[in-house]
Amino acid sequence: MKNLLLTLCFDGSGYHGWQVQENAVTVQSTLQDAVERILGARENIIGCSRTDAGVHAEMFCCNMRTAKEMPPEKLQTALNAVLPRDIAVLSVKEVPYEFHARYDCKGKVYKYLIWNAQTRNPFYENRAYHYPWPLDVPMLNEQIKAFLGTHDFSAFCASGSSVEDRVREITRAEIQKNGDLVEIYIGGNGFLYNMVRIMVGTLLGIQAGNIPTGSIPWILEEKNRQNAGVTAPAHGLYLHEVRY
Amino acid sequence: MKNLLLTLCFDGSGYHGWQVQENAVTVQSTLQDAVERILGARENIIGCSRTDAGVHAEMFCCNMRTAKEMPPEKLQTALNAVLPRDIAVLSVKEVPYEFHARYDCKGKVYKYLIWNAQTRNPFYENRAYHYPWPLDVPMLNEQIKAFLGTHDFSAFCASGSSVEDRVREITRAEIQKNGDLVEIYIGGNGFLYNMVRIMVGTLLGIQAGNIPTGSIPWILEEKNRQNAGVTAPAHGLYLHEVRY
Repeated sequence: MKNLLLTLCFDGSGYHGWQVQENAVTVQSTLQDAVERILGARENIIGCSRTDAGVHAEMFCCNMRTAKEMPPEKLQTALNAVLPRDIAVLSVKEVPYEFHARYDCKGKVYKYLIWNAQTRNPFYENRAYHYPWPLDVPMLNEQIKAFLGTHDFSAFCASGSSVEDRVREITRAEIQKNGDLVEIYIGGNGFLYNMVRIMVGTLLGIQAGNIPTGSIPWILEEKNRQNAGVTAPAHGLYLHEVRY
Repeated sequence: MKNLLLTLCFDGSGYHGWQVQENAVTVQSTLQDAVERILGARENIIGCSRTDAGVHAEMFCCNMRTAKEMPPEKLQTALNAVLPRDIAVLSVKEVPYEFHARYDCKGKVYKYLIWNAQTRNPFYENRAYHYPWPLDVPMLNEQIKAFLGTHDFSAFCASGSSVEDRVREITRAEIQKNGDLVEIYIGGNGFLYNMVRIMVGTLLGIQAGNIPTGSIPWILEEKNRQNAGVTAPAHGLYLHEVRY
């Protein structure tokens, strides 16, 4: 019995997120199908997080315990040949039997892409949120700093989530501008359901004047989802980095 | 009667190139359909070049003479609402009646994208040529310089082309590396059929050792298509800039 760590990259446009669902194509089910075709066994693959429908990953980690024997590099090549072109396996390596892609994850960095020009960009269709109004990136870079550190992120969690401990530590929060492309990076030790998308929606709410400048510390303290902004669309979100 | 210059950006993956063809969806036919829907007249739209099936454009210029009245900005907005999401109209402006998008073009810059890593990149599927072997970019940057200046490019023209004057001037020829993405820029006053793709194929032939290093001046001089490399795939090619 071996435990393998698979690192993926995928365009999430065509998938209902990571996790297996009835009547929907997910990244997990697609990967399990490919593994079954190659190894002849339907293994359960454990992902580092559940991504939403339409969310992308530049790096996504998952692990799989299997009794089937195949050198990791050979399995990588075989999976890349069998998988659809919007999922790629960047590496496969053996890890200790106890390794768990979700529980052992030390931190993640998400990236949120905004195409900030009046006209849409066909090359970022489904891959960036098109926001056609001006963005004051230096101002937003000041605002986003309020997320840094350890806070209760209840206000930035989709209502209905059953997670009890909503304290998380954010270690990276910055915005970069490359021409008309705005990249928001948010890194931390863990994330609540829709947390990054609500953080981005709150920044856009501040930009639009619906949420007062400087109010993020207050929103955190009040712990009320209604004070934060709307949930930004899924197709701008990328899982960018996973640390163990 | 007005003459309008339209600047487009399009992902060419879903099109059989620019030019109208029987039984095939092209960018020109799609744009003419959209104009007809908005203005109620099927105008002939003149493109700055014929792009091949699968070729993209970050900038593509075309002009259209029409008796219909509509402010250019309004036409732009209406076209972006009606066109499929893989074509965007970046601007519409009135130009002198004699202006012709092809004949008046002073120069173009093409970009050829290579994804140069062992594993494919789902985000560059259909948008970059996946070349998994090492590329010696400094060496290729030396080789590509041989294209600069005025030459007879017969060896870099698809056989079967009926163009007689095959002398063109190349004013830009350089390669940039951004991580695993290699960008080849080739600019000049005019291009023969498949010229950029054969130039790229020749560089890759030099890299692979099928074509001797330093032989581009000789290939140009011999004017024989068979001495040059294969035609690189269409999906890596972008029309990057058009000058008038």
